Amino acid sequence: MSEEKIHEICESDLIRLITQGRVPSGPEVIIDNGDDAAVWRVEDPEALQIVSTDSLVEGVHFTELNENTGRKLMTVNLSDLASMGASPSYALLSVHFDRCVNVASVQAMARGLHSRAHEFGVQLIGGNVTRTSGPAVLALTLFGTAKTVIARGSALTGNDIFVTGTLGDARAGLDCVEGFLFLAQVDPEPRVELGRALAESGVVTSMCDVSDGLGSDLAQLLCSAGQGATIFRDALPISDELKAHAEEKVFDYALSGGEDYELLFTAGDAEQIQDLAERLKVRISRIGVVTDSGKLELLGSRGEIGPLPMGFDHFDAAGQRTS
Amino acid sequence: MSEEKIHEICESDLIRLITQGRVPSGPEVIIDNGDDAAVWRVEDPEALQIVSTDSLVEGVHFTELNENTGRKLMTVNLSDLASMGASPSYALLSVHFDRCVNVASVQAMARGLHSRAHEFGVQLIGGNVTRTSGPAVLALTLFGTAKTVIARGSALTGNDIFVTGTLGDARAGLDCVEGFLFLAQVDPEPRVELGRALAESGVVTSMCDVSDGLGSDLAQLLCSAGQGATIFRDALPISDELKAHAEEKVFDYALSGGEDYELLFTAGDAEQIQDLAERLKVRISRIGVVTDSGKLELLGSRGEIGPLPMGFDHFDAAGQRTS
Repeated sequence: MSEEKIHEICESDLIRLITQGRVPSGPEVIIDNGDDAAVWRVEDPEALQIVSTDSLVEGVHFTELNENTGRKLMTVNLSDLASMGASPSYALLSVHFDRCVNVASVQAMARGLHSRAHEFGVQLIGGNVTRTSGPAVLALTLFGTAKTVIARGSALTGNDIFVTGTLGDARAGLDCVEGFLFLAQVDPEPRVELGRALAESGVVTSMCDVSDGLGSDLAQLLCSAGQGATIFRDALPISDELKAHAEEKVFDYALSGGEDYELLFTAGDAEQIQDLAERLKVRISRIGVVTDSGKLELLGSRGEIGPLPMGFDHFDAAGQRTS
Repeated sequence: MSEEKIHEICESDLIRLITQGRVPSGPEVIIDNGDDAAVWRVEDPEALQIVSTDSLVEGVHFTELNENTGRKLMTVNLSDLASMGASPSYALLSVHFDRCVNVASVQAMARGLHSRAHEFGVQLIGGNVTRTSGPAVLALTLFGTAKTVIARGSALTGNDIFVTGTLGDARAGLDCVEGFLFLAQVDPEPRVELGRALAESGVVTSMCDVSDGLGSDLAQLLCSAGQGATIFRDALPISDELKAHAEEKVFDYALSGGEDYELLFTAGDAEQIQDLAERLKVRISRIGVVTDSGKLELLGSRGEIGPLPMGFDHFDAAGQRTS
């Protein structure tokens, strides 16, 4: 692998490396990469415009800039759009690199980003490269559209609480260097199609993705005054791989691990949700119920009730995470 | 001033501090700060959608996180939109802070950002806070709309080259701690109204802002094969303050200094540009002409011709800048 550093090439060559292999821009894009701003024409004036931004920081979210870093940067943003029920369309990439970052690492990151972008038809239409003397910072802004969106804070008391897939695998993946759990950490699957189907089902009342851990994300989902939740410990979806790996830590990982990028949502019609799960061949588990207790509680196997553990706070000392 | 650090408050309080005092969201914004993504409805389906992103990095673009940092972050993005001829509307702010950043500094930064946002009616509708162990990184994504936009790369040979305001003041401001030049560095004025008027004039063929220095920006403006430019050294707009300050470095600063955030553009009708300058009471100088030489040249007072000095390359060792 070449050891060439980015300060040895000019800025326009760096931009060319980053944008190489991107999804080609469609006819509605008037101006893309290389100008002061990107410009597009709205296709459907009735569609809602959705935008989200999320970052990956070296030493916090990744240790090595490689293909997986690029894929995950796109994934975490796709997951944010999925949790609104939106279809992704355009992205802007803002990178901040030390002068001595390897050209080959940047190319690998870009390759990963574009591989995910191709899967979901995301056009990278602009961005920015900036020098830093510190850890690499990758910020992506992702646009999409939707007929209808599902917000947080609109769950109704008595609604069932659901989660897609399994919980805790991504946290367990931090302990691994290969296999199912490792992949759950480095290359999670954003639930874009499912998010859209849930939003359009008409029965989902609120939705978010599981990025900080079930407890934290549930607290943000149910931000209305007085609302709470009871989570059924035995209903939490746990993979066989996690059971075999984590043993007594299984529930710690499932409840507080975070980074699962599964969808967490509330709905008033459990049957319709189950039909949708079967139709789309996705595991969806009913894990609890929205209450008016103002508390997030965990109900154990023998009927014992305790507080639901909280997950990740980005600036808390306890929340240090290096993956 | 309080010495409280951001890791002593919770993430949601940090977000509250950052969003406090922002321009209130209009009725077309369906979901703003606090959800996974922001959502809005398009007002004018005929309008072009414009988006740009630009960052400020501690140790590269600023040394202290304060009100001016926030103002400048908004300004550099407003300038990018101005150079397309767009009207700004929404912003997303992505910040990356070390755990030990002062709460008061973040508040000051936000105050500065919102003060600029209020001047131009920019609604901060979303963003992201992330932890880093390195220098603070502030990335803003700014949206706008326009009836018509002016791109780079579409100048015609024979077009006149114009620049607004004066050049080199921002570079000279790095040597100062107060006064006109200092303000040109820490609080430049984005040319939003003028950019729009130029785009709608019908005579401007290409446009960008002067961020990296006249030479670099001109090279990017005239990216069509075979095009070049002759710049008239004696026509460069120099402020009295710069003349008094920089003496023999005046032209170095004006040609390569960068960060002026003036508009650099080409047009086929110099008279109409001059009328527009008078109407909007803005200094606009005709500084050169587009050629088919493929070279960027500087024409001196005695008719001598030399290469136009190049400005700032973000990753070049020579381009190190700490302001």
